[in-house]
Amino acid sequence: MTQAASGGRPTNAGRGLFITLEGGDGAGKTTQAALLEAWLTDAGRTVVRTREPGGTDVGVLVRDIVLHHRGEIAPRAEALLYAADRAHHVETVVRPALERGDVVIQDRYLDSSVAYQGAGRVLGSAEVRDLSLWATGGLLPDVTVLLDVDQSVARGRLDADDKPFDRLESEQSAFHERVRSEFLALAAAEPDRFLVLDAARPIDDLAAAVRDRVSGALDA
Amino acid sequence: MTQAASGGRPTNAGRGLFITLEGGDGAGKTTQAALLEAWLTDAGRTVVRTREPGGTDVGVLVRDIVLHHRGEIAPRAEALLYAADRAHHVETVVRPALERGDVVIQDRYLDSSVAYQGAGRVLGSAEVRDLSLWATGGLLPDVTVLLDVDQSVARGRLDADDKPFDRLESEQSAFHERVRSEFLALAAAEPDRFLVLDAARPIDDLAAAVRDRVSGALDA
Repeated sequence: MTQAASGGRPTNAGRGLFITLEGGDGAGKTTQAALLEAWLTDAGRTVVRTREPGGTDVGVLVRDIVLHHRGEIAPRAEALLYAADRAHHVETVVRPALERGDVVIQDRYLDSSVAYQGAGRVLGSAEVRDLSLWATGGLLPDVTVLLDVDQSVARGRLDADDKPFDRLESEQSAFHERVRSEFLALAAAEPDRFLVLDAARPIDDLAAAVRDRVSGALDA
Repeated sequence: MTQAASGGRPTNAGRGLFITLEGGDGAGKTTQAALLEAWLTDAGRTVVRTREPGGTDVGVLVRDIVLHHRGEIAPRAEALLYAADRAHHVETVVRPALERGDVVIQDRYLDSSVAYQGAGRVLGSAEVRDLSLWATGGLLPDVTVLLDVDQSVARGRLDADDKPFDRLESEQSAFHERVRSEFLALAAAEPDRFLVLDAARPIDDLAAAVRDRVSGALDA
């Protein structure tokens, strides 16, 4: 663990470009991934669109265990299952694509694991990050687009409906606010890797900002 | 990872006793586990006999992925799947039993992972050990019985059959010799935890030696 995670400097596998999209559900990750893919394909690049969890056959089996198991799964077991999915996915899908020189656009990666675990407060963010880095042999994205959703906007919409805000909704809202803070903290810690965008902006504005950043990374 | 694995001192979960049996296949682990269980039960102790991989429902699913998946599983993914099985098994079977004060007798635990990985030379022994310790929250056995099989004895038997020793058999023999060396090195590093026995000794002699050691651990 320690060797791969802390000792080795995270490096890219090859000549390709590894782009991840992060943010809460409904932030628009799928839309932006599709627009970016179309733009890159038009520009003559080969694009691999993928996702975690479940981006490989092993991943589908792992996801099945996590989602459909009756009864509780121990938190560390769950983190290890997701890490296994990630290890297999990176080894069999992402690294080969990068070695071919392709652009990989991936919906969620290690930042999601870290942010959601950090927000859930069962396992420590640092150990979840170390686990992911060990699983992937230290592979970090070249560019991570964080589509940041202001939780108070979402809450404002709910309030406007004039519905009472129940306890479950309050808890969920507090959880999503913590996830958001975790994502923003990760972005602040690695400003070179992250592009943070306000997901409330118009879709085309966001797409242009993503293209700008990816374009720069391709030239670099 | 680092926090749980290196920072925290490995500790036992409760008042029970955690005994593991290690060694190559055919070393007699099952026989010794059965004899020890009978002796402890006669002495009025509650015993939980268990095994890895596959000692829980989640473990059975994980084992299924590893054994029946068509095609290769990335080595890190496989290590993580086994670690997930272990995490769930320790959390839902071993720790609760130890907390009740039971004696847990387990066929294979983290030393097997470390020895087989070390012998296979794909992943480092130290990182596999760290991974297991993270998975289990640092739970080490109170007593580990290593049933040591001298590979040259097994080879001697093959030679006696006057059959030519083919390449696969040579490779397997070399691998098992490496596994044996890894086990012996682990035992040498933790002499207080390990009881190393020559598996070629008579069954009753071995059982008496195991009882002696466990008896001492129960008194301590």
